[in-house]
Amino acid sequence: MDNTSSISINEGKPIRCKAAISRKAGEALVIEEIHVDPPQPYEVRIKILCTSLCHTDIVFSKLDTGPLTRYPRILGHESVGVVESVGEHVDGFKKGDVVLPVFHPQCEECRDCKSSKSNWCARFAEDYLSNTQRYGMSSRFKDSLGEDIHHFLFVSSFSEYTVVDISHLVKLSPDMPVDKAALLSCGVSTGVGAAWKVADVEEGSTVAVFGLGAVGLAVAEGARLRGAAKIIGVDLNSDKFEIGKKFGFTDFVNPTLCGEKKISEVIKEMTGGGVDYSFECVGLTSVLRDAFTSTRTGSGKTIMLGVDRPLAPINLVSGDLLRGRNVCGSLFGGLKPKLDIPILVDHYLKKELNLDSFITHELDFTEINKAFELLEQGKCLRCILWMDK
Amino acid sequence: MDNTSSISINEGKPIRCKAAISRKAGEALVIEEIHVDPPQPYEVRIKILCTSLCHTDIVFSKLDTGPLTRYPRILGHESVGVVESVGEHVDGFKKGDVVLPVFHPQCEECRDCKSSKSNWCARFAEDYLSNTQRYGMSSRFKDSLGEDIHHFLFVSSFSEYTVVDISHLVKLSPDMPVDKAALLSCGVSTGVGAAWKVADVEEGSTVAVFGLGAVGLAVAEGARLRGAAKIIGVDLNSDKFEIGKKFGFTDFVNPTLCGEKKISEVIKEMTGGGVDYSFECVGLTSVLRDAFTSTRTGSGKTIMLGVDRPLAPINLVSGDLLRGRNVCGSLFGGLKPKLDIPILVDHYLKKELNLDSFITHELDFTEINKAFELLEQGKCLRCILWMDK
Repeated sequence: MDNTSSISINEGKPIRCKAAISRKAGEALVIEEIHVDPPQPYEVRIKILCTSLCHTDIVFSKLDTGPLTRYPRILGHESVGVVESVGEHVDGFKKGDVVLPVFHPQCEECRDCKSSKSNWCARFAEDYLSNTQRYGMSSRFKDSLGEDIHHFLFVSSFSEYTVVDISHLVKLSPDMPVDKAALLSCGVSTGVGAAWKVADVEEGSTVAVFGLGAVGLAVAEGARLRGAAKIIGVDLNSDKFEIGKKFGFTDFVNPTLCGEKKISEVIKEMTGGGVDYSFECVGLTSVLRDAFTSTRTGSGKTIMLGVDRPLAPINLVSGDLLRGRNVCGSLFGGLKPKLDIPILVDHYLKKELNLDSFITHELDFTEINKAFELLEQGKCLRCILWMDK
Repeated sequence: MDNTSSISINEGKPIRCKAAISRKAGEALVIEEIHVDPPQPYEVRIKILCTSLCHTDIVFSKLDTGPLTRYPRILGHESVGVVESVGEHVDGFKKGDVVLPVFHPQCEECRDCKSSKSNWCARFAEDYLSNTQRYGMSSRFKDSLGEDIHHFLFVSSFSEYTVVDISHLVKLSPDMPVDKAALLSCGVSTGVGAAWKVADVEEGSTVAVFGLGAVGLAVAEGARLRGAAKIIGVDLNSDKFEIGKKFGFTDFVNPTLCGEKKISEVIKEMTGGGVDYSFECVGLTSVLRDAFTSTRTGSGKTIMLGVDRPLAPINLVSGDLLRGRNVCGSLFGGLKPKLDIPILVDHYLKKELNLDSFITHELDFTEINKAFELLEQGKCLRCILWMDK
């Protein structure tokens, strides 16, 4: 496929194209014609090839209070596109490059980007509220009446064209299928990265994953890649266990079927004293406590991946912590996008990483509201929306 | 000094000697004559040379409820002694060896003792309630009326003779001064180990220590040994800052003198965004939160060393955790006694580790109640009690 044909005539000018606009909290998206401005310095304009959606898109499509509530806006942050044009001072990308926009930035220059210990870019990662990374609330989208449309998480992939800062952009190998690559821009990387970079799961270790959504399945896949011996899936819905088998899980427990026993007791019995690593992938601090007390005294490590309310109290007690346990959180699975996503791509191309099984549905971009329904009803892990199918 | 002279005639028989007995919660210790039974298999009888005391001894001398409340008992768990006789199946120790009893066990055979990730001996470390490690409530101490006296933390060093299980015993180099060595059996090792083994502080990093008691000072000393660039001491009592300078602290902050600013804001300003490592050495989960929020987003690590009530809630919120922060606890600074204490001894002998400055007082063993007063009044870091001065 030649992605570069016929997309250069608009360079330096606004592009008219279709986008799915979130106009009001809780309402269906509306496909409209919009204008996408040319990229500013350090920005790239991208023709989106395909996008998927994740639960964060659903949550924010309904949000009607808080600092990230802004309408109208263009959601979407899991996608792959091809560079249509670049702004000034853009060195690493050129027209025709296949790229993966990622909500989590990497400036490559700050102290944290240069450190191996952190994936929290000190220059850019503090602000998730702006439309553009370097220009604040300045937007690149206008509707047919000339009104600004807001961006979302610096990506806004529910549009045929979008503008993304280079700090949010990863160049992809041309060998990589674009739909599989799109999965690496959020949930799947978060899960695989948490097992790989945050927990540093080692060969022969034991793992428990609480919550078998896409992130939880990706944690299991990451733990399998690292050689974990036992990977226990914990979910209230036993229907999820069948798909779990495709992603490296070796055992499953449904806490509602454990009788009088606490889930932590069951897991301790299954592992001779508790798992080495547990992962909270539900987004409830109450589940975090179960995950925490399921780990081995003296060395257990718990990673919180699910996002609860920011001020939700961490419901742990000091006695459990002092017994040599560890709890941590991370964003984007501790991965540095530009450095680590190419490594995951390589694992996929070597058939070591299962991405295919995450894609349960494919639709045309114009059917985006149907994709929202499928995900919300739990009928779908990831639905790929093709812009030009 | 020949420690072996005239101590073998009692081998296999009870020894009569003096001990300081804690007969009732909150009351002064009483020096009494007791009988110390010969060691059982896997046990060693030790002539104590010197002992110090730590805050845990004070806390437990007053405790009148809970599972560790037992009277009469012999407290004390920071000491050095010489082996008087050994029980059956004792291979690694012989009469005349200079030894350090440690409250935290290391069986050397279980999965956790064999793992580099844990210092929580799976075989023995679950039970701190018994008198002896292998024989439950069986005691080796009797008072003059023939009544059993309880042990404390498997050491009971406030006695001229004691009996200790080999899993709680470290052999010392004869080059090591015994009073300095005694410090390594609890608080000082806990602090140094936390910086070294738990946090793994690296060269050039920044550290904040909350609470400048002996453990907090030892954390600073450990961080200094590891090459930390900035070590900030935080305490409500500015008088402690003078002694802090002897242990590697480079900066000090008194939160009561920061005006409107939160201590975490002050520390973030001092370090360009937060320290790499913070240590809670007070024993309050409220202080833990300050320590936690003083660390750097994306990579900050907080180690809880202070012991609050076991069920004290960890007062953290999920938003702070998800931003790539880490919190953990440990016992005995993550050290394996038999493996790691000889390394600390070596650091001392090479003049790299400052132990001398911890010893602020020395008294005769019979003045033990005065030593309690000095420690309780904050006038003393460590007071060495000599058995035969």
